[in-house]
Amino acid sequence: MDEPKESGRRGRGRRPAAEVRETVLETAGAMLFETGLTGITFEKVAARAGASKMTLYKWWPSPGALAFEAYYTAVEDTLAFADTGDIERDLTAQLHSFVGLLTTPATGHVIAQLAGASQTDPALADALAQHYTHPRRRLAVDRLTRAQRAGQIRAEVDPQVVVDQLWGACYHRLLLPDEPLDTAFADALIDNLLRGIRG
Amino acid sequence: MDEPKESGRRGRGRRPAAEVRETVLETAGAMLFETGLTGITFEKVAARAGASKMTLYKWWPSPGALAFEAYYTAVEDTLAFADTGDIERDLTAQLHSFVGLLTTPATGHVIAQLAGASQTDPALADALAQHYTHPRRRLAVDRLTRAQRAGQIRAEVDPQVVVDQLWGACYHRLLLPDEPLDTAFADALIDNLLRGIRG
Repeated sequence: MDEPKESGRRGRGRRPAAEVRETVLETAGAMLFETGLTGITFEKVAARAGASKMTLYKWWPSPGALAFEAYYTAVEDTLAFADTGDIERDLTAQLHSFVGLLTTPATGHVIAQLAGASQTDPALADALAQHYTHPRRRLAVDRLTRAQRAGQIRAEVDPQVVVDQLWGACYHRLLLPDEPLDTAFADALIDNLLRGIRG
Repeated sequence: MDEPKESGRRGRGRRPAAEVRETVLETAGAMLFETGLTGITFEKVAARAGASKMTLYKWWPSPGALAFEAYYTAVEDTLAFADTGDIERDLTAQLHSFVGLLTTPATGHVIAQLAGASQTDPALADALAQHYTHPRRRLAVDRLTRAQRAGQIRAEVDPQVVVDQLWGACYHRLLLPDEPLDTAFADALIDNLLRGIRG
């Protein structure tokens, strides 16, 4: 079967693959925020993005993988990690953005729903790890490692553990909500960890 | 309709309510570890515990509430909080037990499944908070507050935030598993937080 030509905003001819990919991710991201994970099928995304379903099958192993990459792409700019040279300032800015994202109903509910569904769906869990949590963790570890080289964090500290004590602590308040998730909480997380809590 | 008499190990007569309640919780706990949340219905638990379904309806608002109380009861002893007077020692002992529970497939999968399902089921989320995460958080906050009074933790530190940076960090590795969840991780969490990570 011949693959149908991509149709789209340019109206004629075949669009470059990178452009199609970008449109598909934007479309899947918008659908994810509108309808949640259940709204994401290759067929629906392809139809709305003006792309062929075969192209989507070629690029993503599952609709879940597409959904996570779309989510990651949608929130990438919000969650970018600054490097001003001051780790406390950069952690504060990044965690404030992150808390903002988790407490905005559209984005917060989506990530909670994705994390929840991945508990009983191993393929979804793999896609979430590969397309979302691994890349995000790497960005944080990179910034923390630079702070270590700059002598702002002790050399023996494992940056991976710090990720769980900052971002992981926020996910805990999102997924098992007992206490408020806000910027004051983010500031307390950073203060506890940088200074230590010992009396 | 007359409520049928409770039947059970004693074989005759009506058992005291406290004993029936204990048997129902034990039975629901065993079923939870065998079949997961989907195996818990008032009908099935009542039949296996030799109790009346009406009694279960009277005592628990939903099968989810029963499941969480059963889980809490089953793991209560494992997760008890010692008070030796040394907060670092007590946190280490408790977190090692907690990590042991989360990494034992039967118990770890059950709590991950409960937390996952609660993302899209508000009644389940309420039951989880009321019957599991609130009581567990309170135990930890009580112990941390005693450590604060003993001068082992700074007075300005919010014990609620510490809960998210210790137990919450472990939940993060359970629910979004990128990095190993083991006792070395627990030790690193405690060390980072007590001493601080600043270089």
